[in-house]
Amino acid sequence: MIQFWKEFREIESLLEQVQSEMKSRLYINNNEISAALQDFSTQGGKMVRPALFFLFAGMGETVTLQDKVKIASSIELLHLATLIHDDIIDDSPTRRNLPTLQKQLGKDTAVYAGDFVYTVYFELLTETMNGSALLSQNAKSMKKVLMGELIQKDLAYNTDVKIYDYLRAISGKTAELLCMSCYQGAYFGGLNRSSQKLARRIGRNVGLAFQIYDDILNFSVDLKNEKPILSDVQQGIFTLPLILARDHSPEKIIPYLQRASFLKLTDLYHLAELVKKTGALENALKLAERLTSKALKDISHLPNGTNKNILIEATQKLLKRDY
Amino acid sequence: MIQFWKEFREIESLLEQVQSEMKSRLYINNNEISAALQDFSTQGGKMVRPALFFLFAGMGETVTLQDKVKIASSIELLHLATLIHDDIIDDSPTRRNLPTLQKQLGKDTAVYAGDFVYTVYFELLTETMNGSALLSQNAKSMKKVLMGELIQKDLAYNTDVKIYDYLRAISGKTAELLCMSCYQGAYFGGLNRSSQKLARRIGRNVGLAFQIYDDILNFSVDLKNEKPILSDVQQGIFTLPLILARDHSPEKIIPYLQRASFLKLTDLYHLAELVKKTGALENALKLAERLTSKALKDISHLPNGTNKNILIEATQKLLKRDY
Repeated sequence: MIQFWKEFREIESLLEQVQSEMKSRLYINNNEISAALQDFSTQGGKMVRPALFFLFAGMGETVTLQDKVKIASSIELLHLATLIHDDIIDDSPTRRNLPTLQKQLGKDTAVYAGDFVYTVYFELLTETMNGSALLSQNAKSMKKVLMGELIQKDLAYNTDVKIYDYLRAISGKTAELLCMSCYQGAYFGGLNRSSQKLARRIGRNVGLAFQIYDDILNFSVDLKNEKPILSDVQQGIFTLPLILARDHSPEKIIPYLQRASFLKLTDLYHLAELVKKTGALENALKLAERLTSKALKDISHLPNGTNKNILIEATQKLLKRDY
Repeated sequence: MIQFWKEFREIESLLEQVQSEMKSRLYINNNEISAALQDFSTQGGKMVRPALFFLFAGMGETVTLQDKVKIASSIELLHLATLIHDDIIDDSPTRRNLPTLQKQLGKDTAVYAGDFVYTVYFELLTETMNGSALLSQNAKSMKKVLMGELIQKDLAYNTDVKIYDYLRAISGKTAELLCMSCYQGAYFGGLNRSSQKLARRIGRNVGLAFQIYDDILNFSVDLKNEKPILSDVQQGIFTLPLILARDHSPEKIIPYLQRASFLKLTDLYHLAELVKKTGALENALKLAERLTSKALKDISHLPNGTNKNILIEATQKLLKRDY
């Protein structure tokens, strides 16, 4: 999926370097675990976070290429570590069309493998930003990501969940890391304070829009889709489309939410149809588009140049999917 | 169990400050999770790691009390994070006579709760050693701990496991953190290079001895013991006493190892009796004593003073248990 960037040859080539860096860092004295981690880190993902980092970092020039690749790798590894633990918690059989780590290695080893990836993330930070203010920013960021996950767990099966709760959860779980990717890029690229501030906001809004689009996609029922349809609902995670639909037609939607974990495939199809009929998907889409517009407006204030143009194109491409 | 230190009033009081620090750091916007984490962090443990840190740090004077408390807390939190994930993997119902976190919060939340504790560890480091060489030492250490856990998982149910493998696993899993506790104490206390080197070696040897004693205790069958008897064996973890017994009487021991996960309570009693008869417990004890003697000899070369005396007493107390 790194081919998502194939029109932007320079970014693609940098992402390839991130893949090599991650591969060499994920070496461990056990072939099976090494191979599983290395495959997981380099197959299938769009690598949005490191790409955003490079796009911002490339607008200025202060850090060495080697350090840029390391920082970009650290961001992607933090993301991967949370995915490994997510898949354990959700008991997912596949991720990006590959068996998940716990399917390959067993649940136990996968818990430690996730922890191990956190240590590699930490190691890369000590090599690139020891003494920098960005180190504590990273710690705060990691904390927010975990808080987002815990908030989501805490809200699970809560039929009364509010839009505010949802936004708080995805702000931690997804937007925080995209925010940090852009901000770190701007910071290490040596952009001025006002561009750094823009970078943060762009990352956050792109991140929120990205997650909302993802949650809308989850309701676009498609049997060929590898991801179990509406698996979120069965796990008690009620995302924006569902919240909007519930507020529109509580009498129809709430009964489904109340027995979320017992819903069968046919129930889920009915639910998806109901949600569509309320217009919730369109309304969710409107919010995502509003966030995208905000991000694009902020991007227009960044320093002119190739990377700004790529950023505009990539944001549009990333956030315009088919429904 | 912090009362383990009650004869050493100053250390006990410092450990109480670590408990407060950990409590305030483990606050999260969810009462149930906060309470569970705070209880877990302050109940039952001997807090050997922060105590060792303080004993070494107190031999010199460079860091503020506040920073010492933070560093000591970081070490204990790293330890706690690994315990939380260990308990998930071992599916343990209790730890230190309390229900484990996953019993209280569910497995899913416990995975994230462990991750959250890692972030607090990381946060404390960024506040106390940003710019210090000890930061990357911490990353290396964390990596070694995880490697130790992964090695142990990898060796599980291997009936041919060697003493060398066992030592490698416990060197990461247990000794590494005790090593870092002593070393960081010496470093931040401002002791000279040769004392820092001694500190490392003392921590490692005390750590190895500590784990070996623990593994011997596991074979001292006692129904009143809260820890499930020989639970390690059922999980395929073959510790030193078992390895020594197997090398002494392979024909008697190997059949048990081959069906480790199917052993019933009566089988485990028989196995424990067999191990005792081979003299393996005495031989394991000899190794632990040799490591303790080495540590005590190294301690004798540290700067004279109260803390050195406490260190000698505590080492003897810690490593002389009843069998």
